[in-house]
Amino acid sequence: MFSVDDHRYMALALRLAERGLYTTDPNPRVGCVVVRDGRIVGQGWHRRAGEPHAEIHALREAGEQAQGATVYVTLEPCNHHGRTPPCADALIEAGVARVVAAMEDPHARVAGQGMARLQAAGIDAATGLMQPQAEALNPGFVARHRRARPYVRCKLAMSLDGRTAMASGESKWITSAAARADVQTLRARSSVIVTGIETVLADDPRMNARVDFEARGPDRVVLDSTLRMPPSAAMSASPGSTWVATLSRDERKRDALQQAGLRVLDVAGGDGRIDLHALLNALADLEYNEVLVEAGPTLSGAFVLAGLIDELIVYLAPHLMGHAGRALLHLPGIDTMQQRIGLRMTELKQVGEDLRLTYRPA
Amino acid sequence: MFSVDDHRYMALALRLAERGLYTTDPNPRVGCVVVRDGRIVGQGWHRRAGEPHAEIHALREAGEQAQGATVYVTLEPCNHHGRTPPCADALIEAGVARVVAAMEDPHARVAGQGMARLQAAGIDAATGLMQPQAEALNPGFVARHRRARPYVRCKLAMSLDGRTAMASGESKWITSAAARADVQTLRARSSVIVTGIETVLADDPRMNARVDFEARGPDRVVLDSTLRMPPSAAMSASPGSTWVATLSRDERKRDALQQAGLRVLDVAGGDGRIDLHALLNALADLEYNEVLVEAGPTLSGAFVLAGLIDELIVYLAPHLMGHAGRALLHLPGIDTMQQRIGLRMTELKQVGEDLRLTYRPA
Repeated sequence: MFSVDDHRYMALALRLAERGLYTTDPNPRVGCVVVRDGRIVGQGWHRRAGEPHAEIHALREAGEQAQGATVYVTLEPCNHHGRTPPCADALIEAGVARVVAAMEDPHARVAGQGMARLQAAGIDAATGLMQPQAEALNPGFVARHRRARPYVRCKLAMSLDGRTAMASGESKWITSAAARADVQTLRARSSVIVTGIETVLADDPRMNARVDFEARGPDRVVLDSTLRMPPSAAMSASPGSTWVATLSRDERKRDALQQAGLRVLDVAGGDGRIDLHALLNALADLEYNEVLVEAGPTLSGAFVLAGLIDELIVYLAPHLMGHAGRALLHLPGIDTMQQRIGLRMTELKQVGEDLRLTYRPA
Repeated sequence: MFSVDDHRYMALALRLAERGLYTTDPNPRVGCVVVRDGRIVGQGWHRRAGEPHAEIHALREAGEQAQGATVYVTLEPCNHHGRTPPCADALIEAGVARVVAAMEDPHARVAGQGMARLQAAGIDAATGLMQPQAEALNPGFVARHRRARPYVRCKLAMSLDGRTAMASGESKWITSAAARADVQTLRARSSVIVTGIETVLADDPRMNARVDFEARGPDRVVLDSTLRMPPSAAMSASPGSTWVATLSRDERKRDALQQAGLRVLDVAGGDGRIDLHALLNALADLEYNEVLVEAGPTLSGAFVLAGLIDELIVYLAPHLMGHAGRALLHLPGIDTMQQRIGLRMTELKQVGEDLRLTYRPA
């Protein structure tokens, strides 16, 4: 159904889409290639929300040559007026003959309607070419629309013997400078970092992305059921929004935080603990695609036990820190081998002297 | 000084030597290639102690064609009467023109004398071609002669969060069947496995090499300062010798063990603990080349803290076992980041669903 050339052009469109990895949030990364008579006449990719979609860039570059052309796009063209006019209309007006989309847009307002509109206009429109690769480009956008939760990564750094800090709390630095720089890149592609109030009180981190390229993200969310967050916390000065997710209705504290530029997020909970499912639903409502959990063993462990982690990224340093050091994850209730949590490794990379191991649920 | 062809033939000799990986103990693995007029006329490798050395096999295959030939051998030919006559004499008698050895024999009775004897007989004799590769073939033989201690590997299996058992002690099985089979191969190349009496009392392991190929090893040593070893322990029925290393002079217990076929090894110690340096010196005296430590976190940790581990092999399983599980290594006295023990990763391999990580001291 799809030819070798179709695959080749879609692969190019996927590579174009990747250029938006750090900037399209909350929009998806999308790439587009226009081909006529075996020649590429237009290429485009979506750079940032509010700016033209990939198809528009590619059609502009193609100009008159879009007539009768085949358009490869990594996501179904939109058929609704958002911040920009519908791409389906633009493709019809340009007179293209064929549109190949890697995947259907999971957005409820599109969900096949874009392709239907093209077909109704007599355009040969097909979906599904290199769909797994296209979904992998936008795990958060897809997850947010399909299951009303973002895609959640949890990042941890440990010694070979599974320790994240000495008993004293000392942990600077477990991993190499190269691994720490790699984390900045991971932050840069994330929509929001989730951490706990304990981490804020212990380390007062900025939790921004210190990278030397353009990046939109991340925002931050601090889980702080009783509003212990200091308005002067370093992350209040980081770019983007910093949310304090809380169960507290203490108006004085809320005002103090808001006056310091922090935003208060009311979430559901019980027994004094924030409900992590509800939190993630709220983050999806706020259009956060990719969540990065950078927290201590208790909060990270709670996400793991709740089954809410899509990807566990462990930086493994070639050191031994000893049995007295802090555990990687606090996982109460796991007492037998049968109860252990199975994972599958999906990626392995050497970063400086450390290993970066990526796991997903088994 | 050495040509491309020299390297090529020595590489072949190294590959031949590898065939003895599981059988030459306590002798080194050695390979030999005889080349005349650009043609390989003889190949040989040492199979097991008491049988001919690699050079003799290769010279026999070469026959008359050894005259004027070049001989590549991965270890300096011996010049002393051991269980077989000196290879240096055999090379002289065969009339070879040139001998290239990868490394000097670290054995005090050879140590350059083999090459000197060849030179004295008018043979062009040179040492040092691909020496690192040749040393890597025989890390135990080299270590035993150079520093009077065997080469020591420590093997551990853990979950992603650094746990070697549940709090209850349950640990079957942390790793996959593929990883456990890999451990059998590691045992098969080892001269002796070192473990602690606690492991014997808890698991009653056989600690043999369950492989489907010919292997000489391993023997076993149980560290048991007060002779708690049950004469009926399963490992007393395993092939080879099982030593009980002890500080105890309790004659009744010693007799009972010896009558069960176990051997008692008296070692130095203090405060009721066996001195690990002294133990390794004793194992070198017993001509053990490669030691595999397969013990619990306390004994393994003691070897690490004493700086006696040459290679740490960690099988890492894709599971989370939780903070209550047992630690990888018991390392008392490590309380600050500065005190942590640095390693460097030298090998990484996927074995089934697990990773096998190999580290050496930094």
